[in-house]
Amino acid sequence: MRRGFYIGRFQPYHNGHQAVLEGIADEVDEIIIGVGSAQLSHDTQNPFTAGERVLMITRALETIDCPFYVIPIEDIRRNALWVSHVTSMSPPFEICYTSNPLVIQLFREANIRVKSPPMYQRESLSGTAIRQRILDGEPWEDYVPAPVVDVISEIEGVQRLRTIAETD
Amino acid sequence: MRRGFYIGRFQPYHNGHQAVLEGIADEVDEIIIGVGSAQLSHDTQNPFTAGERVLMITRALETIDCPFYVIPIEDIRRNALWVSHVTSMSPPFEICYTSNPLVIQLFREANIRVKSPPMYQRESLSGTAIRQRILDGEPWEDYVPAPVVDVISEIEGVQRLRTIAETD
Amino acid sequence: MRRGFYIGRFQPYHNGHQAVLEGIADEVDEIIIGVGSAQLSHDTQNPFTAGERVLMITRALETIDCPFYVIPIEDIRRNALWVSHVTSMSPPFEICYTSNPLVIQLFREANIRVKSPPMYQRESLSGTAIRQRILDGEPWEDYVPAPVVDVISEIEGVQRLRTIAETD
Amino acid sequence: MRRGFYIGRFQPYHNGHQAVLEGIADEVDEIIIGVGSAQLSHDTQNPFTAGERVLMITRALETIDCPFYVIPIEDIRRNALWVSHVTSMSPPFEICYTSNPLVIQLFREANIRVKSPPMYQRESLSGTAIRQRILDGEPWEDYVPAPVVDVISEIEGVQRLRTIAETD
Amino acid sequence: MRRGFYIGRFQPYHNGHQAVLEGIADEVDEIIIGVGSAQLSHDTQNPFTAGERVLMITRALETIDCPFYVIPIEDIRRNALWVSHVTSMSPPFEICYTSNPLVIQLFREANIRVKSPPMYQRESLSGTAIRQRILDGEPWEDYVPAPVVDVISEIEGVQRLRTIAETD
Amino acid sequence: MRRGFYIGRFQPYHNGHQAVLEGIADEVDEIIIGVGSAQLSHDTQNPFTAGERVLMITRALETIDCPFYVIPIEDIRRNALWVSHVTSMSPPFEICYTSNPLVIQLFREANIRVKSPPMYQRESLSGTAIRQRILDGEPWEDYVPAPVVDVISEIEGVQRLRTIAETD
Repeated sequence: MRRGFYIGRFQPYHNGHQAVLEGIADEVDEIIIGVGSAQLSHDTQNPFTAGERVLMITRALETIDCPFYVIPIEDIRRNALWVSHVTSMSPPFEICYTSNPLVIQLFREANIRVKSPPMYQRESLSGTAIRQRILDGEPWEDYVPAPVVDVISEIEGVQRLRTIAETD
Repeated sequence: MRRGFYIGRFQPYHNGHQAVLEGIADEVDEIIIGVGSAQLSHDTQNPFTAGERVLMITRALETIDCPFYVIPIEDIRRNALWVSHVTSMSPPFEICYTSNPLVIQLFREANIRVKSPPMYQRESLSGTAIRQRILDGEPWEDYVPAPVVDVISEIEGVQRLRTIAETD
Repeated sequence: MRRGFYIGRFQPYHNGHQAVLEGIADEVDEIIIGVGSAQLSHDTQNPFTAGERVLMITRALETIDCPFYVIPIEDIRRNALWVSHVTSMSPPFEICYTSNPLVIQLFREANIRVKSPPMYQRESLSGTAIRQRILDGEPWEDYVPAPVVDVISEIEGVQRLRTIAETD
Repeated sequence: MRRGFYIGRFQPYHNGHQAVLEGIADEVDEIIIGVGSAQLSHDTQNPFTAGERVLMITRALETIDCPFYVIPIEDIRRNALWVSHVTSMSPPFEICYTSNPLVIQLFREANIRVKSPPMYQRESLSGTAIRQRILDGEPWEDYVPAPVVDVISEIEGVQRLRTIAETD
Repeated sequence: MRRGFYIGRFQPYHNGHQAVLEGIADEVDEIIIGVGSAQLSHDTQNPFTAGERVLMITRALETIDCPFYVIPIEDIRRNALWVSHVTSMSPPFEICYTSNPLVIQLFREANIRVKSPPMYQRESLSGTAIRQRILDGEPWEDYVPAPVVDVISEIEGVQRLRTIAETD
Repeated sequence: MRRGFYIGRFQPYHNGHQAVLEGIADEVDEIIIGVGSAQLSHDTQNPFTAGERVLMITRALETIDCPFYVIPIEDIRRNALWVSHVTSMSPPFEICYTSNPLVIQLFREANIRVKSPPMYQRESLSGTAIRQRILDGEPWEDYVPAPVVDVISEIEGVQRLRTIAETD
């Protein structure tokens, strides 16, 4: 049994994440998706709750041909403890997929194998860019899997993001 | 879409939990299983990590005919905030299944519907009883689903529990 | 301006507290009432929220002839920091009224004057005794000021305490 | 009984706050004033302790014709839990007065009524502007109620703010 | 360079600790002494602050022929993260000396070598026994190194322990 | 016995710190060195763990002619409690040496004597400047005591800092 771990904030989950996970699905038996900064929501960088993000990811991956776990991970704000925190919340895994230099460094110091997946259209496919498109009233729905559009609609996520972004 | 929420500590996940969840599966479209006290492990009341418990539950439910989510929930130690904490970590749900009086009270004050499922052989089917059997060297494997025996074996859980229970 | 500080958990506020505060009112210009363990509620030792306790105290003291402040104080779980925590949350005060030996010791080490007020019918007039009477279905209303009976009734406090005290 | 809730950081309490509260006093039976970021003090954005701010507010409102509560509220750093936190620390209220878009959004999601009071001379009547005037040695006393000047003088608040604003 | 780690709460530091450390000094180049539950003080199980315990240990070891570090370690309340917490606060070490079964288990799971030192007169040489002797007014000074008697005297530790042990 | 307290983050410990401590050594009987923000590591402002910083300081001071303590101090994020936090973690001291205006203000409000030591070549001798030189590949070894170069080499600190400073 070979499990791979992939972490992100998924604010929101988008086509770039989906492409990376489809690639990982070819390399491992099971995928663990850590939903980082799980305790954050309702701010402009983190508009969605962990539960909402779990829902986006699970629906978007319904047709993927690889078992997966979606695990909310609260921030621990202490880098030296972060790998222990992650591994305590997750089923055991053998490899971490990440492009984040800090995550790479922390897992390497813990002697856990790290692999950096290729990123897809990073310019447009980023949470920051998509949140900005939502705020600017530009089309954003093509940058995320269709089920994510549905979830954001159900929770009135566009209105929420625009309200909390207002300056008073 | 009707989702039901069920929470426990699952130290370990046992046949009583499995029976309750099989009952819930007949009543809802999707089940959310909250793994409570997720931050605790390696003590005699809570020997297993959240990730280990996620693994037990997921394997034991592989053949259940109902989609499910398994969500670690860290303690918040403030009862008045607990329902908000749980709902922020979980996909939206309409009903909470629980027999715990405090959980019943907290969800009722939050105007969320609560239903108490019947419990099965509560005397022998409790985490406390099973942990005691493990400590006493009595057979315990018949009280939990077979995949839970495998997980506990893989993580050397019997040795762990016995060591941390020693008095020095 | 001479201010006196008095702290308790007030679960619930009762006639003993009222008698002590009436005594303090004769000695100071203003009273500060710290509502301790403000973050706790919905457990058998601490059934009421801080806000509910603030309401009980404020209504019960409406006719007292001394200005007063009611300040929720969350636990800090570090005794060496507790006096700094309290003084940062409270208007400045010159004297602390308390019979609790730990509080006495902590304020003395901080060179703040402490005075132990006489206690009234401590056997029956204690939060523990009153909560037990509520649980046992015995009359308890005569042990608290009338407005406290009203507050507990409005928030359905008797039902809450009895539910959370049930063993499952 | 109709209670209104109003929250701010009050660093310091100024004439704009006073004007808003005088308006609220005409609409409700009792006012609850939440002192936000209660745990912060001694920094350039938050020079005053919660207790000092409670004192400013209480003295400034001495002549208002409406009962009021002043409640320190520590930050919880989790937006999804913030409304539960506030309501647990406060007597029950029916309406929240606020112009802050995040607070509006959070209370609306909790189905609590929100009303945005008109703001008075927002350019000059803001905590930021008044703290800057103090730092710059410009007159600031006319922007706050007279008792606030007294409190800041008693606690040597001008010296405190200027010292902590120095760069080393 | 071979460093050994030894942890205790040292409430107070006594002759048993001293004997163990003298034994460790023969086996390593440098000793790291972790002062556990550093955030606790002023309770009957933990009367002394971390700083007071650092002082006791440092003075008692002044004549030991081995360099040593004394490091306060706050509790992290999450066993799965505890080894990472300890190693982040301490200079690197190769071996942990402990007789505590939980500590043994946690370090073993982290693949760090553990050795259990022999304990000396454990019945009488325990913090619990010595605190009880102090409370009972029995002689206790012979159970601790002479400099510990001095430190406890300087900080009026006997009076502190007796006061906080009073029931009100 | 006259003890002086000196606090810094020591990211890394450099010749400016060394010069200040050599000056303090002439004025007191014992020095306490508080290692601030002890919980932070592995970020660009705070690359080194508390334990690594304890090691740097201890080795660099091996030849100083004054007994010293090196005490990790975790952030408490509440300025009004910070002095109590520091004094609880440290042996008693009579004077604090610092040039930080906030620290000066906090100790003065606590009636503890403060003295500002002269700083040496502050432009080049700052943690910020030295971390930047490391990142830029410029020589930095002459700005820190020789043992600090050794510690950073042993822990592969240059590689760590450069990796975590990469943008992804």
